[in-house]
Amino acid sequence: MTDLSRVARYPERTTADRTALDGLLDSELVGTLSTVVDGEPWSVPLLFARDGDRVLLHGSTGAGLLRHVAAGAPVTFTVTVLDAVVVAHTAFDSSANYRSAVIRGRCTPVEADAAVAALDLFTEKVIPGRTAEVRPSNRRELAATLVLALPLDEYVYKSRTGAAGAPDEETDAWYGTVPMRRVAGAPVADDGCEAPLPASVQRLAGD
Amino acid sequence: MTDLSRVARYPERTTADRTALDGLLDSELVGTLSTVVDGEPWSVPLLFARDGDRVLLHGSTGAGLLRHVAAGAPVTFTVTVLDAVVVAHTAFDSSANYRSAVIRGRCTPVEADAAVAALDLFTEKVIPGRTAEVRPSNRRELAATLVLALPLDEYVYKSRTGAAGAPDEETDAWYGTVPMRRVAGAPVADDGCEAPLPASVQRLAGD
Repeated sequence: MTDLSRVARYPERTTADRTALDGLLDSELVGTLSTVVDGEPWSVPLLFARDGDRVLLHGSTGAGLLRHVAAGAPVTFTVTVLDAVVVAHTAFDSSANYRSAVIRGRCTPVEADAAVAALDLFTEKVIPGRTAEVRPSNRRELAATLVLALPLDEYVYKSRTGAAGAPDEETDAWYGTVPMRRVAGAPVADDGCEAPLPASVQRLAGD
Repeated sequence: MTDLSRVARYPERTTADRTALDGLLDSELVGTLSTVVDGEPWSVPLLFARDGDRVLLHGSTGAGLLRHVAAGAPVTFTVTVLDAVVVAHTAFDSSANYRSAVIRGRCTPVEADAAVAALDLFTEKVIPGRTAEVRPSNRRELAATLVLALPLDEYVYKSRTGAAGAPDEETDAWYGTVPMRRVAGAPVADDGCEAPLPASVQRLAGD
């Protein structure tokens, strides 16, 4: 860990617990990739997937920011989920239960057979079981896709969990939490699609 | 708009539509603030609230990154929401319906009476109606809080909406979308809280 990975504020919310990090990365689908271009910050939201000790990102080979990052520019990749609204006895103490990871490092391109496996991993993360239902990616599709790997060597994982906390003053205000979660709705087949609903989509919507 | 705000890829997903931007910013609660420190990207997730033509951020006056940003370092603030998983007839064409904004600029501190109003706005965004149920923030609380404003002058709003799209090849695969949304669960009062559930929390959980 470099100095940049040390968290000055709320150290009690910080842990190097890989289990917690992996849980966050495996359940969330979108993060923010940030880098520096000519001294200015530049950010883009991206789908991602964890592959063991690294995070995989992908995009078009025509995307300038990804090419910049593939060439070795330093990045952060930030993933956050809001787990609950914390309603305290005061506005000031109200907060959010959340989990977040800021991963720091440099990306390396993933190529050839490893890129094929990476794209399958992406598909399986977002739509588990889907790769068995559709044809494999072909050479043209692979050639159009830039896959990048960011190692999970340096990261800050932070979270707030639990109750609102006991008031430190006289109050008759309610205090507690309101949990939040992402849910899937009913699948919507495209007009013109006559295929039956596949098992992968049934599972995805059944959450 | 500077060059940095031009989007090379998927220009059809870009719009300067303020209505769409405001809709995203008013419904989402968490974004990623990124800046540059000694040539390296640095990012932190933050709650935020839109106040007309600017986004308000806040944190502890002890947070080094916020002080760096308050001193005029260039930032991006990225907000993304996943609206649906797009299940195409191939893995390659599968995607996500999403809305995202990358706002670019420099923050200015919000102070005195304007900071009081900003903190109330934060509370009202996350827990509408709550400010009328609790005491106002006091001088000590305000002194501990750094409020920053980022103007909505320069931003990239992108989205993907709609269907998976008609296959360009023979296939018997299903294709369509699976909508995703955030829902609130039942409120959880802290142990020891004996107050009745207030109207603000009832509304928040009723979504």
